[in-house]
Amino acid sequence: MPEAAPLGCLAVVGLGLIGSSIARGARRYGLAERIVAIDADEAVRARVLDLGIADAVTGDAAAGAAQADLVILCVPVGAIGPVAAVMAPHLKPGAVVSDVGSVKASVVAAVSPHLPDGIVFVPGHPVAGTEYSGPDAGFSTLFSNRWCILTPPEDAPEAAVERVRALWQGLGAVVETMTPEHHDLVLAITSHVPHLIAYNIVGTAADLEQVTQSEVMKFSAGGFRDFTRIASSDPTMWRDIFLTNREAVLEMLGRFNEDLSVLTRAIRYGDGDALHDLFTRTRAIRRGIVAQGQETAEADFGRARAAEGVPNAG
Amino acid sequence: MPEAAPLGCLAVVGLGLIGSSIARGARRYGLAERIVAIDADEAVRARVLDLGIADAVTGDAAAGAAQADLVILCVPVGAIGPVAAVMAPHLKPGAVVSDVGSVKASVVAAVSPHLPDGIVFVPGHPVAGTEYSGPDAGFSTLFSNRWCILTPPEDAPEAAVERVRALWQGLGAVVETMTPEHHDLVLAITSHVPHLIAYNIVGTAADLEQVTQSEVMKFSAGGFRDFTRIASSDPTMWRDIFLTNREAVLEMLGRFNEDLSVLTRAIRYGDGDALHDLFTRTRAIRRGIVAQGQETAEADFGRARAAEGVPNAG
Repeated sequence: MPEAAPLGCLAVVGLGLIGSSIARGARRYGLAERIVAIDADEAVRARVLDLGIADAVTGDAAAGAAQADLVILCVPVGAIGPVAAVMAPHLKPGAVVSDVGSVKASVVAAVSPHLPDGIVFVPGHPVAGTEYSGPDAGFSTLFSNRWCILTPPEDAPEAAVERVRALWQGLGAVVETMTPEHHDLVLAITSHVPHLIAYNIVGTAADLEQVTQSEVMKFSAGGFRDFTRIASSDPTMWRDIFLTNREAVLEMLGRFNEDLSVLTRAIRYGDGDALHDLFTRTRAIRRGIVAQGQETAEADFGRARAAEGVPNAG
Repeated sequence: MPEAAPLGCLAVVGLGLIGSSIARGARRYGLAERIVAIDADEAVRARVLDLGIADAVTGDAAAGAAQADLVILCVPVGAIGPVAAVMAPHLKPGAVVSDVGSVKASVVAAVSPHLPDGIVFVPGHPVAGTEYSGPDAGFSTLFSNRWCILTPPEDAPEAAVERVRALWQGLGAVVETMTPEHHDLVLAITSHVPHLIAYNIVGTAADLEQVTQSEVMKFSAGGFRDFTRIASSDPTMWRDIFLTNREAVLEMLGRFNEDLSVLTRAIRYGDGDALHDLFTRTRAIRRGIVAQGQETAEADFGRARAAEGVPNAG
């Protein structure tokens, strides 16, 4: 693998949870000589200045990006194309553009037509986050031991891919490359459909007439509360994901529904063996996730400890 | 509310996560003069002896229960009726029987016919737990600030209800009473259907041919891993729950499916406003759950901190 040239100027566009975490991490780990923060929202810019996580802060995407060797677009998926169009004519020759969008094929289609010759687009997606949004939600270790997927075009110069890979590795992530289409299928099942069914069951519970919202909240520790975490993620970001990864989401949702029909039938006809069999198989997947360091093995995610500051034992 | 008489002998039947937590808590908080642990599994009995969380340990349900003023059945829902039948003829006059089953109407139907006159059944359900099972998984603070639902028959003597209520309050729980039928509806939406869809999506992901299990595990931090926690809960316990709360689960599953169809249609036809609207509404429910102390407000359940032992900030 060729050694990447040291990164001069890094421009981060959109200083929310992900963008501000990149800026924090790039500074903490010395990954760029200069960090420029670009955000259209004046309140966010003021907050970024206060936090001191960038060398310069601007609302002018064209001027801000003009200085950059690497531009990372950290805006909602639906805004990536329009923002790229504004910046594109002003980019330095040889600049590399990347993004952090949760959908890749539609982002490639939205960005690529705007970029002049000599500017390479290396799409990226760090599989990391929390349910919180905004510049204060970020932290420098967000990407530590998380995966970052890159979906470079086949003809991308290796040096451009390496520039993006080096940033993510510097932030502590493990980098994997695949096609945009495969990315969108993988994320549909590991992220998008899980979010959709979480949003859905929270909505179902909120709308019941036999059970009050107060009861739902009180007795949520039986499982429901787990779903409310991801169902409190940023609405605009998630609207855009479902609008732009429609085909893969509908495909995976179809699988989910087929399987749920089989399970429903097992309940209706009292097929305990079928239920026990599935409930046993699913344990292995969690063990694998814990073994791969993508999840804590602590009971209840360790949240009793997080809430009380005491060990979960008695 | 009448003052409960001090509890003499507490018998805990089934020393798994819940039963062993009750024994630990009863001892720690001095809630009974004597604690008898009853378990049919020799390995569990040996472990309970080692842990020292009961005054006596036996595999003989009849003899063990004969001493008790309060018997708490902590076996899977499908086993509660049979165990009650074995113990019933041997209970002391005036003894109170309770349970911790996640389903109530079917448990009432399974237990009540076996109990002689003078023995009161006060069904209970602590809405608390973790994904782990067995005597080592328990801890004395499991019920702290969690709700415990009691579903006493209308003609239950208040002193009997109070004996059970006092135990749960002593363990730190907040007690609420309702009918068994209402309990089963409330739990269907707050616990049983959430578990079912979690088991289901983990099964769907495991069976895909386009996305490998290895990819599912690697990229699980995008949301999927949250579901694997409850999908690793005890298979026998959960099989029994679905077999015994069939009607309420099917009813709530019907609601879930209706809502998911509407959401699927919004995705198919690109109705971004409908998606954004739901995704905004669902945030309020989580805020309510956090405000009521049933959930941590820490990002990601605080699990980054649980895993690394360091603050989640940078």
